[in-house]
Amino acid sequence: MRVRLTIEYDGTGYSGWQLQSGQDTIQARIEAALQKLFGQKVRIHGAGRTDAGVHALGQVAAFDAPRHFDPIDLRRALNAMLPPDIAVREAVEAASRFDPRRDAYLRAYEYRILNRELRSVFDHRYAWHVRDALDLDAMRTSARRFLGEHDFAAFRTLGTETKSTLRRIYVSQWEQRGEDLLLYRIEGSSFLRHMVRAMVAAMVEIGRQRMRVAALDALLSGGDRATAPAAAPACGLFLVEVRYPPQAARGRW
Amino acid sequence: MRVRLTIEYDGTGYSGWQLQSGQDTIQARIEAALQKLFGQKVRIHGAGRTDAGVHALGQVAAFDAPRHFDPIDLRRALNAMLPPDIAVREAVEAASRFDPRRDAYLRAYEYRILNRELRSVFDHRYAWHVRDALDLDAMRTSARRFLGEHDFAAFRTLGTETKSTLRRIYVSQWEQRGEDLLLYRIEGSSFLRHMVRAMVAAMVEIGRQRMRVAALDALLSGGDRATAPAAAPACGLFLVEVRYPPQAARGRW
Repeated sequence: MRVRLTIEYDGTGYSGWQLQSGQDTIQARIEAALQKLFGQKVRIHGAGRTDAGVHALGQVAAFDAPRHFDPIDLRRALNAMLPPDIAVREAVEAASRFDPRRDAYLRAYEYRILNRELRSVFDHRYAWHVRDALDLDAMRTSARRFLGEHDFAAFRTLGTETKSTLRRIYVSQWEQRGEDLLLYRIEGSSFLRHMVRAMVAAMVEIGRQRMRVAALDALLSGGDRATAPAAAPACGLFLVEVRYPPQAARGRW
Repeated sequence: MRVRLTIEYDGTGYSGWQLQSGQDTIQARIEAALQKLFGQKVRIHGAGRTDAGVHALGQVAAFDAPRHFDPIDLRRALNAMLPPDIAVREAVEAASRFDPRRDAYLRAYEYRILNRELRSVFDHRYAWHVRDALDLDAMRTSARRFLGEHDFAAFRTLGTETKSTLRRIYVSQWEQRGEDLLLYRIEGSSFLRHMVRAMVAAMVEIGRQRMRVAALDALLSGGDRATAPAAAPACGLFLVEVRYPPQAARGRW
């Protein structure tokens, strides 16, 4: 029985999603809970890695349950065993060939910026604190530049092996919430490592008027990564949602 | 030069506001920052204690600065030295006789309840998680019972010495936010220890239909504290605001 989990976590205290020897990761915590539940090692597969400090509202992962379990009971049992900063929002029976990474057709991320002089005691783990005045119109203009298909080679971590650095972006927009919160929403089929954080860093540089939209265009048309600003802090980033075709549901694969 | 500070803190990691030997408290952290800044011990006085785990958006405290300091610079210097879960929102010069506890004429608290089956990884430090269905109408009716002057002897910690247990409440209301967040707002001139949390616990028992409004009325007219429900968890409580007459400002005292 293949099970699909939708998982929420506060990534502050973890070395990211992915299993790494000697590190406390989300995947390690969930596998530990599953091992306790089933009395044997269970391997889970996530829709994608999130880096240390990155949060998730809707990470997706799958595993093969060694024996049948009602999904509602499974969710309750896992939530009782997981630490308070990791929770299973949903557990459902998946198609037997469901692959959370390959089958995903859409991923949505949000990036939160607290834009004011004063730091916030409640947001310091969940937003990038930017004190400088930001030109939101310029940031909105630059966000639109990412729409469609582009080569994002300049917006990734060097040294990662990837066949193609072409990616298609469907949604890329800034929204102001309340007085001092800026929210960036991006949706695409898949992303390169550190790509969203590198894009946010570039847009903030434009918002600060330290970089021009033309420089962004140059980066997008094969520009040198060395001229791109460093990635924005991990704490502002949330993996919001991963979407699958309806066939990924049980039995109709 | 007497200075008035407005302070925000996430109380999760602290043993409350008040200085206690061997304990990590908010007051101790602020006094340590002031000592670093002025090179000598500085005693601060808060508008009131908050218990371990209780948060504040607008705690107020005062101290006598050993030497003159521009309030804006003072705020910046303190925020640079304080830990990320404590922040000074405002620093202003106060009247020389300003007393944050005695001069306050209004205190406002909020209590947050997450009312749903699933726990939240982002709210577990900032809300009481109540899974049972709650009758919000009954809770609203009971909240109105607290309005005006009452004897709150049944809603405090036993063993605290207080001259009078009569208190006047100006605002007492529940509000629903989004799908599953319940927000209780209460304003009064002053509060007994654990009073708000004991009131919230009683209202939640009424919301669960395990207690009747008549039993609340009995507690309010001199009923036995032993029959009152235990206090609600500290994590849901926020000291939102403390108000002072305009004379408390500099020079006009």
